[in-house]
Amino acid sequence: MDISVVNALPYEDFVNIFGNVVEKCPLITAAVWTRRPFTSLNALEAAINEFIDALPESGKEGILRCHPDLAGKHLHSGALTRESQEEQTRVGMDALSSAEASQMARLNAEYKGRFGFPFVICARMNDKVTILRELSERCRNERAAERARGIAEVKKICRLRLQGLTLSDATNKL
Amino acid sequence: MDISVVNALPYEDFVNIFGNVVEKCPLITAAVWTRRPFTSLNALEAAINEFIDALPESGKEGILRCHPDLAGKHLHSGALTRESQEEQTRVGMDALSSAEASQMARLNAEYKGRFGFPFVICARMNDKVTILRELSERCRNERAAERARGIAEVKKICRLRLQGLTLSDATNKL
Repeated sequence: MDISVVNALPYEDFVNIFGNVVEKCPLITAAVWTRRPFTSLNALEAAINEFIDALPESGKEGILRCHPDLAGKHLHSGALTRESQEEQTRVGMDALSSAEASQMARLNAEYKGRFGFPFVICARMNDKVTILRELSERCRNERAAERARGIAEVKKICRLRLQGLTLSDATNKL
Repeated sequence: MDISVVNALPYEDFVNIFGNVVEKCPLITAAVWTRRPFTSLNALEAAINEFIDALPESGKEGILRCHPDLAGKHLHSGALTRESQEEQTRVGMDALSSAEASQMARLNAEYKGRFGFPFVICARMNDKVTILRELSERCRNERAAERARGIAEVKKICRLRLQGLTLSDATNKL
């Protein structure tokens, strides 16, 4: 999809296509439509990142709280968004060993109890070994550092979702 | 539901219950969880309103763009959120005469073309006659005034949804 096609989209189509590039936060996509025309896909991505950066810290935590647990209950119940389901399945979160699943559940609970938001990592840039190691290590961080780290991961996820949508013919969604 | 019950909710339950008090914007609900404990339901509502007010103008427009058209295509296809479906049906948006439906569709399109966001009004505080009159009149406003007016309506909708959830036993949703 050429950027000129993106720029010509009415807001309803724009939100319909790109509304989940930040998980369950169509507000962000809908907001940056105001900033069109974009000179490139990178400019669209930059507008999203700028919007996120300008949010108060509570807003950044809000973004994190809209993310599901990795290998959490919603993965098996089918309650994830399509994007999250694909990303988690691709990295094998649906096929953990019993020991891995127990470790993940224990560490997810520890992380959420400590920070008040879930562990977020760009699954497609990791494998299950690095995800488990990162989760274990990041549990020991400070809250502010972890909030910033989670948002950095949100931006990586966003970039890959944007690329996927624009490289595929996402106008088929219309 | 007592405010002490609300304050004791883990973020996942809080977002599960209150995530749609601002239509399709769970980010806002998830963000204000950071501000707990709340002294009252009014304090929770105030925290939501403050978060909205602190957003840039693009963010306010983003909130409006997350709202469906009144009497739009999603009302009949069943694609609305539960809350929006109930609110639109209660005020008779699903039972417009052919002439009313045509007028609504024409004015919705005119409004969106002029402002780049949809007409938002608290349906439960109006009837179909006042809604059609307001839509017709507000089409002639300036963009900034209409953005502010739309956000004022979002806050009215939010208040009624919050009241409905806390007066009913919304913990049944858990």
